Amino acid sequence: MKKVAVIMGSDSDWGTVKKTVDVLKEFEVETEVHVFSAHRTPAMAMEFASKAKENGFGVIIAAAGKAAHLGGVLAAHTILPVIGLPIKASTLDGLDALLSTVQMPKGVPVATVAIDGAENAAYLAIQILAVSDERLSEKLSEVKRKMEADVLKKDQEMQEIFNA
Amino acid sequence: MKKVAVIMGSDSDWGTVKKTVDVLKEFEVETEVHVFSAHRTPAMAMEFASKAKENGFGVIIAAAGKAAHLGGVLAAHTILPVIGLPIKASTLDGLDALLSTVQMPKGVPVATVAIDGAENAAYLAIQILAVSDERLSEKLSEVKRKMEADVLKKDQEMQEIFNA
Amino acid sequence: MKKVAVIMGSDSDWGTVKKTVDVLKEFEVETEVHVFSAHRTPAMAMEFASKAKENGFGVIIAAAGKAAHLGGVLAAHTILPVIGLPIKASTLDGLDALLSTVQMPKGVPVATVAIDGAENAAYLAIQILAVSDERLSEKLSEVKRKMEADVLKKDQEMQEIFNA
Amino acid sequence: MKKVAVIMGSDSDWGTVKKTVDVLKEFEVETEVHVFSAHRTPAMAMEFASKAKENGFGVIIAAAGKAAHLGGVLAAHTILPVIGLPIKASTLDGLDALLSTVQMPKGVPVATVAIDGAENAAYLAIQILAVSDERLSEKLSEVKRKMEADVLKKDQEMQEIFNA
Amino acid sequence: MKKVAVIMGSDSDWGTVKKTVDVLKEFEVETEVHVFSAHRTPAMAMEFASKAKENGFGVIIAAAGKAAHLGGVLAAHTILPVIGLPIKASTLDGLDALLSTVQMPKGVPVATVAIDGAENAAYLAIQILAVSDERLSEKLSEVKRKMEADVLKKDQEMQEIFNA
Amino acid sequence: MKKVAVIMGSDSDWGTVKKTVDVLKEFEVETEVHVFSAHRTPAMAMEFASKAKENGFGVIIAAAGKAAHLGGVLAAHTILPVIGLPIKASTLDGLDALLSTVQMPKGVPVATVAIDGAENAAYLAIQILAVSDERLSEKLSEVKRKMEADVLKKDQEMQEIFNA
Amino acid sequence: MKKVAVIMGSDSDWGTVKKTVDVLKEFEVETEVHVFSAHRTPAMAMEFASKAKENGFGVIIAAAGKAAHLGGVLAAHTILPVIGLPIKASTLDGLDALLSTVQMPKGVPVATVAIDGAENAAYLAIQILAVSDERLSEKLSEVKRKMEADVLKKDQEMQEIFNA
Amino acid sequence: MKKVAVIMGSDSDWGTVKKTVDVLKEFEVETEVHVFSAHRTPAMAMEFASKAKENGFGVIIAAAGKAAHLGGVLAAHTILPVIGLPIKASTLDGLDALLSTVQMPKGVPVATVAIDGAENAAYLAIQILAVSDERLSEKLSEVKRKMEADVLKKDQEMQEIFNA
Repeated sequence: MKKVAVIMGSDSDWGTVKKTVDVLKEFEVETEVHVFSAHRTPAMAMEFASKAKENGFGVIIAAAGKAAHLGGVLAAHTILPVIGLPIKASTLDGLDALLSTVQMPKGVPVATVAIDGAENAAYLAIQILAVSDERLSEKLSEVKRKMEADVLKKDQEMQEIFNA
Repeated sequence: MKKVAVIMGSDSDWGTVKKTVDVLKEFEVETEVHVFSAHRTPAMAMEFASKAKENGFGVIIAAAGKAAHLGGVLAAHTILPVIGLPIKASTLDGLDALLSTVQMPKGVPVATVAIDGAENAAYLAIQILAVSDERLSEKLSEVKRKMEADVLKKDQEMQEIFNA
Repeated sequence: MKKVAVIMGSDSDWGTVKKTVDVLKEFEVETEVHVFSAHRTPAMAMEFASKAKENGFGVIIAAAGKAAHLGGVLAAHTILPVIGLPIKASTLDGLDALLSTVQMPKGVPVATVAIDGAENAAYLAIQILAVSDERLSEKLSEVKRKMEADVLKKDQEMQEIFNA
Repeated sequence: MKKVAVIMGSDSDWGTVKKTVDVLKEFEVETEVHVFSAHRTPAMAMEFASKAKENGFGVIIAAAGKAAHLGGVLAAHTILPVIGLPIKASTLDGLDALLSTVQMPKGVPVATVAIDGAENAAYLAIQILAVSDERLSEKLSEVKRKMEADVLKKDQEMQEIFNA
Repeated sequence: MKKVAVIMGSDSDWGTVKKTVDVLKEFEVETEVHVFSAHRTPAMAMEFASKAKENGFGVIIAAAGKAAHLGGVLAAHTILPVIGLPIKASTLDGLDALLSTVQMPKGVPVATVAIDGAENAAYLAIQILAVSDERLSEKLSEVKRKMEADVLKKDQEMQEIFNA
Repeated sequence: MKKVAVIMGSDSDWGTVKKTVDVLKEFEVETEVHVFSAHRTPAMAMEFASKAKENGFGVIIAAAGKAAHLGGVLAAHTILPVIGLPIKASTLDGLDALLSTVQMPKGVPVATVAIDGAENAAYLAIQILAVSDERLSEKLSEVKRKMEADVLKKDQEMQEIFNA
Repeated sequence: MKKVAVIMGSDSDWGTVKKTVDVLKEFEVETEVHVFSAHRTPAMAMEFASKAKENGFGVIIAAAGKAAHLGGVLAAHTILPVIGLPIKASTLDGLDALLSTVQMPKGVPVATVAIDGAENAAYLAIQILAVSDERLSEKLSEVKRKMEADVLKKDQEMQEIFNA
Repeated sequence: MKKVAVIMGSDSDWGTVKKTVDVLKEFEVETEVHVFSAHRTPAMAMEFASKAKENGFGVIIAAAGKAAHLGGVLAAHTILPVIGLPIKASTLDGLDALLSTVQMPKGVPVATVAIDGAENAAYLAIQILAVSDERLSEKLSEVKRKMEADVLKKDQEMQEIFNA
């Protein structure tokens, strides 16, 4: 199975990004976590992206706030799918990070998830790997059923209390 | 090779979505195009999404404007990666479609690209399939080199005119 | 009298939605509360909406945050009026939920109230039922008079303190 | 059957509002059209709203742009459901009208539809009347089926051209 | 000297509006404070505005949040200048109140000050009265000099600490 | 009677500002029009503002776009009421000009009207002068009646066509 | 004298960027124009930025639209001041480019000018070089006087027409 | 070496602006700190800007919130580069200050950094002085290397914990 790289622009993003890693672990996806800054360690970021495919990665997740260039910088150096996770890190509620991540020019997409949507960055990475991995595919179906069951249970509880 | 489904919420989106299909054809990816509305033909949309995996699809692209629920509705019924293409279709410059597409709840991501970023929806789909398809992978690298060459050529032309 | 259904997308919305239910109870409107997710339990949501009319409901209230598709998904499966209550549930102050709820396409309206405007979702439901229900109509007039009296009393108090 | 009042804040809104009236006519709903300004003819607006119920109206539609107070002013004087149709009439893409219409205080809701969503204002009014009117209810179901058929037809056409 | 009326839409605005009244008192301007709601006590608001001029008022200040219609409703019933003070009262940071207050249609202006700019509503009212009142005019010049002196003093303090 | 100064930041604003001047002329208010830039001719702007009161002005109208500092710069040098008219002059729909004009700090208000609300800048100036000028006051009442009559006439026309 | 580099992300920005180059030429500043894309030719962009100082450049201007990463990518590889010129290139009025350019993280500033503010990018570059270049300094003062004279002339013309 | 002036519009901005001064001190740049208000002490602000060049300043930093006119007012009176630091000081998350600072008209740029980006205002000033100052240039390179090392160290730490 291909590995997933989780790159964050600053270690201050870890509080959010940890939830991404937790989901990947839950799915037993081999994960590598890095702190690379698009602006402070651009060489490292590029080096990593350039070799990610040959190093066995299948997807790269880039988490960054403010003028969130990390996703774009990584995508510029790889043909692997890059998932952008916009982080709320300024006064602007993460809108700056969302637009900086999603509004990419033709030919270099970044697959953007919700602001601070840490778990969804992981789920999307897994869905991508699952396109050619039956084990992950089955596990995703199982989680989907579990999510459904959880909501049903909460509905039931609400029923008992309010519709009794 | 897995197929790509391109679903648009309204045939009025075709002017934009055609560019998605053109890129997919250029990469010789088997593509199926549909007009399914999250709100007017929800049953069709769900039916399609539910069976997309077993019908040989690897990725679904959902193009929609305004309160763009199509990506979310499809993602609710499949574990395949769903790419959301927000369309500018109201007075709000596509911001409504962007937020309706990208701000998905935990467990059900939609991989969002730029507003009206039709080509990027296709490139992202191809990148996803290329994770396990060497031919596509090589073709992506080739296109990346070509894009680079195109910019270099334009730089050269600019050089000749302005920096001579 | 027709019943009102109050559907919330997640039980985490209950803090807000409880105020909707309280107003409905105050008016002695028969109310059913559910937790249905547009994305995690879409089948339940659709099933409920499809049969809501024949099951004696007159209005459906849908409370959801972020990419708030719940109102639209319910409205797709019923001809009953669906009231959308956008919940502030992300970093974006509820603007995402507002636009996802109100910007519906032609033919499938969602009657949207203010962000976190829980009581107004109930008042609007009651106004709709009151179109053909004289008891509710009278009660609404009474509440309107009471609201007026409350403001007048506050004006009076202000008068006594500041304009004395 | 109760009548529907369609009030616009300025006759310059007529280009949009005409589409509201057309849908109401198509459903054979008795409709009265007025130009009342919340700011230039407030007395008329209030007079009309105050007597709307006893004059046989079941729903009021208020179309207005910019600082769109019309819906709120009408709602202040009636217990009938008031539908707000925000019109794009300034440089701000209708966002001013949307917020002025939807962000109503507790106790005085305005049921807001999409910016320039003229047809949906009508559909919502009809859905409200249909709660107690079987003919309208049936006609709504029929229109819903027709909308579905239209999309299916467009899907088919797309199929024939692109998936052949 | 003409009086100033300070109208707030809800007594919950008093925390902010008190600062308006304090400035007016400091200038010894005769002030009347009221709680009138554009939506809950529209008759009172209109009655007050209609008679404000003959009752000796020169300016009306209207403080309101959310869909802040109060300024517009008062302006509709008087030719006195109406000052709008948008209050932050929803999740939207007061942007809804700002747009609802400032974007008035032709012929019915509301003189809008900053969101929560309570003191400025008072200063503007005083500037308006001062156009024909030499005492207020002199007091305004004096306050302007004092503000200047305050900043100069703070600059001096900063100098002593940092530029020493 | 006091004079009104209409200052625009650039002669490119004249297309909009002309409508301000037309209303002032209609009311026979003595008006002086200037092109002063807050950034290119700051000395002129300040000089004018500093002496405006002694030169017989009662109100200053400042029209400017983008980072619209003109209103604030003028208000800094006078105790006369300054009316800010935000002009749409950039890609941002006038939102930049609105915020730059209205969000003034404590003690230095700018009375802001709608984006491109040229006529309302004039009406507000006239309302301010009318506080101590009975002729203007009567003329304003007359115009208000005329505006009312115009809307009523349009309502009548609409009646004849659609409610016949 | 140090040279100025004008880098644009796409040759489609040239219509705007040409105005930057024109001002630089008018000041006889040696200028080099390039088309480098942060995402399509990242290696070229970095190479250029890394060597810009030793190659005799004093300032770099980066013009880009949408997710405008160009300024940030260049700033990551040089200690020269980088001026960011956000270009309106998407449906979002240039707001995406503005936020992507200005919201840079600590330690790597991009000196941002107005959206499409092509001339100002040049003026700022010249001001920066003028800090240690008396000829440019004098020329800037001259231009400032000319700008002032132009406005004064326009004021005069307005005077003759309207205040005569 | 030229000096840097740090001007703040209000001493309440000091909490943020102190970080600007700290960076300047770290680089041993001679710095003068002032509190000048564009609206309360305009004369002082202009006087300072007019003489800044002859008084040995090379760059002016202007920190201000809300309708942040300070940068523009200073830039109007000098040909020195003026750096604008938008401060979050209102309910609008600093968006008002950002737009008021960056959207300057042709000929009078303000070099804008991120909202509350206090350190970057200093770094940009130092980069500008470094264009003709080798010591600062070397120190900037050194800081850039240190920033890089810091991120690398954090990456290493992350490696040890998560990728072990």
